[in-house]
Amino acid sequence: MPTDAEIAAFEAGIKFGALYHQFAGTPVSRESADSLEIAIEESIANQPHASDVSVAIDGERIARDADDHGYVELTGEYMDVAVSIEYDDREARAEMSMVDGYPLMQLVSVTQG
Amino acid sequence: MPTDAEIAAFEAGIKFGALYHQFAGTPVSRESADSLEIAIEESIANQPHASDVSVAIDGERIARDADDHGYVELTGEYMDVAVSIEYDDREARAEMSMVDGYPLMQLVSVTQG
Amino acid sequence: MPTDAEIAAFEAGIKFGALYHQFAGTPVSRESADSLEIAIEESIANQPHASDVSVAIDGERIARDADDHGYVELTGEYMDVAVSIEYDDREARAEMSMVDGYPLMQLVSVTQG
Amino acid sequence: MPTDAEIAAFEAGIKFGALYHQFAGTPVSRESADSLEIAIEESIANQPHASDVSVAIDGERIARDADDHGYVELTGEYMDVAVSIEYDDREARAEMSMVDGYPLMQLVSVTQG
Repeated sequence: MPTDAEIAAFEAGIKFGALYHQFAGTPVSRESADSLEIAIEESIANQPHASDVSVAIDGERIARDADDHGYVELTGEYMDVAVSIEYDDREARAEMSMVDGYPLMQLVSVTQG
Repeated sequence: MPTDAEIAAFEAGIKFGALYHQFAGTPVSRESADSLEIAIEESIANQPHASDVSVAIDGERIARDADDHGYVELTGEYMDVAVSIEYDDREARAEMSMVDGYPLMQLVSVTQG
Repeated sequence: MPTDAEIAAFEAGIKFGALYHQFAGTPVSRESADSLEIAIEESIANQPHASDVSVAIDGERIARDADDHGYVELTGEYMDVAVSIEYDDREARAEMSMVDGYPLMQLVSVTQG
Repeated sequence: MPTDAEIAAFEAGIKFGALYHQFAGTPVSRESADSLEIAIEESIANQPHASDVSVAIDGERIARDADDHGYVELTGEYMDVAVSIEYDDREARAEMSMVDGYPLMQLVSVTQG
């Protein structure tokens, strides 16, 4: 049987995969970045065991890359994400940020909560 | 060549297909319905020729259908949507609402703007 | 009331928005491009009034752009799409391809079917 | 620092969240279920550390639930999924199936590979 720590890590992974693949491709401009940030945070926080979801969308970078219509399609390049999971007495923490030009999802820690 | 009226109608269709298939499946609770409404409206309003996007998510219905974790996956059943397109001097208006138990996307009118 | 030609154009738009926002972000490699092409075609062809859906995913371009893991996330840059709609006695035809570096969805024609 | 076993579990979670939220909402009929199965398997198998991805879409259930147009939008209700991850010398195995009427993603085992 998997340990509580492993299940906490699994749950953290689900949230990242869900968040990324639900919202990647969303049209986003500098002006609409804030509302999308909040919606992503509140949406993923609904999922089981998600104790904290924090999303930062980089409006400056979007403004720089935007096409004539003023927007881009959301990708990992424009987002920093941190998610905390509580499963029984374990807490898993994971982050997504750019590493060597690619958005990388990383399990940061699994600790006794 | 297509007429301006036909292009306006085509653009309205794009917005509906985009909105629906980008956001269907998003975890949503009564509490997070408002932020998702705003994010969908502002996101789709970024797209070319979209002059007005109005989304209403039915929090009561979500609360009624929610599982033990308090949320559902967003489907057409929980949304009313209206989109207006301006293309040259034509305005197209389209709506999505429930008809006979299915979410139906309908072109309402194409008029001289 | 909208004309049949306008409704045919609206339906073509829906298919494009749906196709793009359902599948954008899908992990795709040169090796998996064929199965994704077929799945997209068959999926969108299910939708009402879609008489023909043709998708070409550019495996060479994917191989060129792929990261160390050999894949990219699907965007309009890697796809050519053509969709035909039949609505009553009208046929609408639309295409998506790269124009000036951006994927552009265009209504090509609306004719008597 | 997380253990290899925890990272393997995290990676399994990512694949499940990705698979579900990328493809939920896809129009699918009994006839198109096979091509969608293959495309999902091959797509997710592209992702890092995914050693096996197995998807079964229930065409009979789709036929039973389909609307007048012969299709449904894909949800967890129509899919059984199993994913294996290899990370260093650890193997994580996870499954999604219906439990009490809800699609449940479960970490089945994390073993020495």
